[in-house]
Amino acid sequence: MRTLGSTALLTDMYELTMIEGAVRSGAAGRRSVFEVFTRRLPAGRRYGVVAGTARVLDAVRAFRFGPEELDYLAEAGIVGQETLDLLRDYRFGGTIRGYAEGECFFPGSPIMTVEGTFADAVVLETVILSILNHDSAVAAAASRMTMAAHGRPCLEMGARRTHEGAAVAAARAAVVGGFVGTSVLEAGRSYGIRAIGTAAHSFTLVHDDEEAAFAAQVATMGPGTTLLVDTYDVTRGVERAVAAARAAGGELGAVRLDSGDLVAQAFTVRKQLDDLGATTTKITVTSDLDEYAIAALNAAPVDSYGVGTKLVTGSGHPTAELVYKLVAREGADGQMHEVAKASKSKASVGGLKVAGRVLDEEGRAAEELVVSCETFEDGLAELRRAEARPLQVELVRDGETVPEHCDDGALAAAAQRHLASRAELPYAGWRLSEGEPAIPTRHVDIFPADDRDPAAII
Amino acid sequence: MRTLGSTALLTDMYELTMIEGAVRSGAAGRRSVFEVFTRRLPAGRRYGVVAGTARVLDAVRAFRFGPEELDYLAEAGIVGQETLDLLRDYRFGGTIRGYAEGECFFPGSPIMTVEGTFADAVVLETVILSILNHDSAVAAAASRMTMAAHGRPCLEMGARRTHEGAAVAAARAAVVGGFVGTSVLEAGRSYGIRAIGTAAHSFTLVHDDEEAAFAAQVATMGPGTTLLVDTYDVTRGVERAVAAARAAGGELGAVRLDSGDLVAQAFTVRKQLDDLGATTTKITVTSDLDEYAIAALNAAPVDSYGVGTKLVTGSGHPTAELVYKLVAREGADGQMHEVAKASKSKASVGGLKVAGRVLDEEGRAAEELVVSCETFEDGLAELRRAEARPLQVELVRDGETVPEHCDDGALAAAAQRHLASRAELPYAGWRLSEGEPAIPTRHVDIFPADDRDPAAII
Repeated sequence: MRTLGSTALLTDMYELTMIEGAVRSGAAGRRSVFEVFTRRLPAGRRYGVVAGTARVLDAVRAFRFGPEELDYLAEAGIVGQETLDLLRDYRFGGTIRGYAEGECFFPGSPIMTVEGTFADAVVLETVILSILNHDSAVAAAASRMTMAAHGRPCLEMGARRTHEGAAVAAARAAVVGGFVGTSVLEAGRSYGIRAIGTAAHSFTLVHDDEEAAFAAQVATMGPGTTLLVDTYDVTRGVERAVAAARAAGGELGAVRLDSGDLVAQAFTVRKQLDDLGATTTKITVTSDLDEYAIAALNAAPVDSYGVGTKLVTGSGHPTAELVYKLVAREGADGQMHEVAKASKSKASVGGLKVAGRVLDEEGRAAEELVVSCETFEDGLAELRRAEARPLQVELVRDGETVPEHCDDGALAAAAQRHLASRAELPYAGWRLSEGEPAIPTRHVDIFPADDRDPAAII
Repeated sequence: MRTLGSTALLTDMYELTMIEGAVRSGAAGRRSVFEVFTRRLPAGRRYGVVAGTARVLDAVRAFRFGPEELDYLAEAGIVGQETLDLLRDYRFGGTIRGYAEGECFFPGSPIMTVEGTFADAVVLETVILSILNHDSAVAAAASRMTMAAHGRPCLEMGARRTHEGAAVAAARAAVVGGFVGTSVLEAGRSYGIRAIGTAAHSFTLVHDDEEAAFAAQVATMGPGTTLLVDTYDVTRGVERAVAAARAAGGELGAVRLDSGDLVAQAFTVRKQLDDLGATTTKITVTSDLDEYAIAALNAAPVDSYGVGTKLVTGSGHPTAELVYKLVAREGADGQMHEVAKASKSKASVGGLKVAGRVLDEEGRAAEELVVSCETFEDGLAELRRAEARPLQVELVRDGETVPEHCDDGALAAAAQRHLASRAELPYAGWRLSEGEPAIPTRHVDIFPADDRDPAAII
């Protein structure tokens, strides 16, 4: 678990004005169920990847309004004194369930469910969505890339192409999706991810010649380092690189190619290395890669991939488009009612949801079963009847974070879980080409019919 | 100016291993010039917008290695003791020039130039690029949207669709591009941007009916508030909204439409409001807008636009693809030499650059003149000869930040500057359609020829 500064103002203003209105009307204390889900996957994607769960739990724990936050709210006139007093004491006291981090998800999957009073739960909307939308977008891109790489290591190098804070979260999300290293040091410090990197073209250029640059790098990082060989001429670069390592008494660890036609170059450079006897020297490539470029490079003698821009920007889909919707709440009668927005273009399915993955006889995922129900236990019973693997775990219980999902081991566990979840998908789920979600989502509603909100189920 | 925690680990590992190698070779102390520029604008874009300059200056000032940062570097074995000692004392002591925030830019525009020793300047690469790439991408999208809106106010509401920290920076960048409000409170606190927002669908749904929800909101926010009218049926919603405001003794401020066919609905709702006598009640729309949707809505009676996803993700181009390249450095002879990477696909132009915008007789931008030169003064003289408006300002002088570019007034000044810079573009620059950059970039090299790095100008 990490301790953050207050996350309370990483929040849309309307969350607070809604609390103010609901305090006035008496609805603020109504028991409520909010759900995070997506109406659709990004165009053509086969599956989504839950990422950011541990960061959500850190953010919820740090969601407190201290004097500095309250002063701003008062000075800017965002809400009145009564609401300020309520926010001063705010501490999430409800329950959060969700898909464990790393799990695959599909349209309608209830990937996180927040239960509490309306005021308690509504105010977390913005920060929960920010984290899950960003991290899940990056993890989904990462997963496609590591799938395309077929076991060759993928390394995250995109910090410079995204917001400086997002870069750190992106490095973490990339690990959920199967990456094994990051260029950005803060991700090394915050999440224990292996930091990687040796030198840029500027290092070669600041020296009077390539030989001097390579000698300096080998002197500090050892002959096992990776030398960037494409500042001037690649063939000469490779020659000098191997020579520099041997002059230091070793064989060169790797050469890095960062421009040009990487497939053709990889073959040429591999042959050159082998001809020089540097058969253990590896080749890493790093120029504008995405999952398609990686797939194309699989035929070439490349040993690892460094990925930047396309990874941290979600490879065409920089946000997972998850939404946070009220799906059930206490009514004037004290009973829970399922609710849903009726507008045609954004209609949603009401009710607390319990989700499970139905497997076929061969153990492959066949269906995402999503049950609308009154209590979690009712839904679990329905999953048992369908022999579905339950997908939700308890993340926060009565305001207390479940440590397993945000402690130091959570990231490695999420990466393992993703590998298993992805391996369970049918073959169609592993295709890079655009298509339908790997499995269909089936909604079942066992919510007692007379408790439904009549206005909302038009 | 803001005081941040240390930004020193928002850095790619290789910046530090390069310092280590350069200390060993003696190159670490060589005077160096690094330049931020883009090789190309995102496909079809007519201009870029410089944004994030003030955040860069904050980050440079906070770029210090304290005990926590050094402990991590030591424990992870990133660099050795000699380099740790050097980093302990690190404080940028050089000079940074750049396009003032808000200025338009084009391929090859030297939007930021960092001069210092190699070690001083190389280490800032990652954080400078992270900030400029993110903020400029959002500002460029914002500028296209405000241009499409033709004076109707645009409001930023995208926090939930991007990383929680990026959301705050995005709100700021949107203001550079002409937006006038933000949903996210931290952007209100950090940058003095007007916070906006009233209620979501969940507020209506938590109440037993729409009337109760509207009454509660009007009771706390006054009849001048904006009511969201599309949770159930829009026509009934508008009726109830107007009635709720009048019951509180006023006329409704605005209705918000967040789904459906916004153009058709705007006409229908405007007529309904007028028929109800609510002629002062405004209409704001907020569903999945981008610059094209805004342009289409200009024909409809809409009063303001709330933009989320497409704004904070750069409307298809989430990063500005700016790079940070060594363009000149001291050689073994103690003289400055221009340098450039020769690889075909990523070739760059060497030398310190001085840039100016050449205007035609009508005062419209005609050309981006970029002069490669040995000293800044040489370049300025060339600009004077061409009667070009100089584009670069001093941002950091000998390690001291120039307050004007990062103080509390910097954001408003950047927004003003962008309006003026955009107004100066030729008509072609204002088109939303894909096309060439609004003006061409012309490179002139007045660097003394015999000081060029012979290896690099293949």
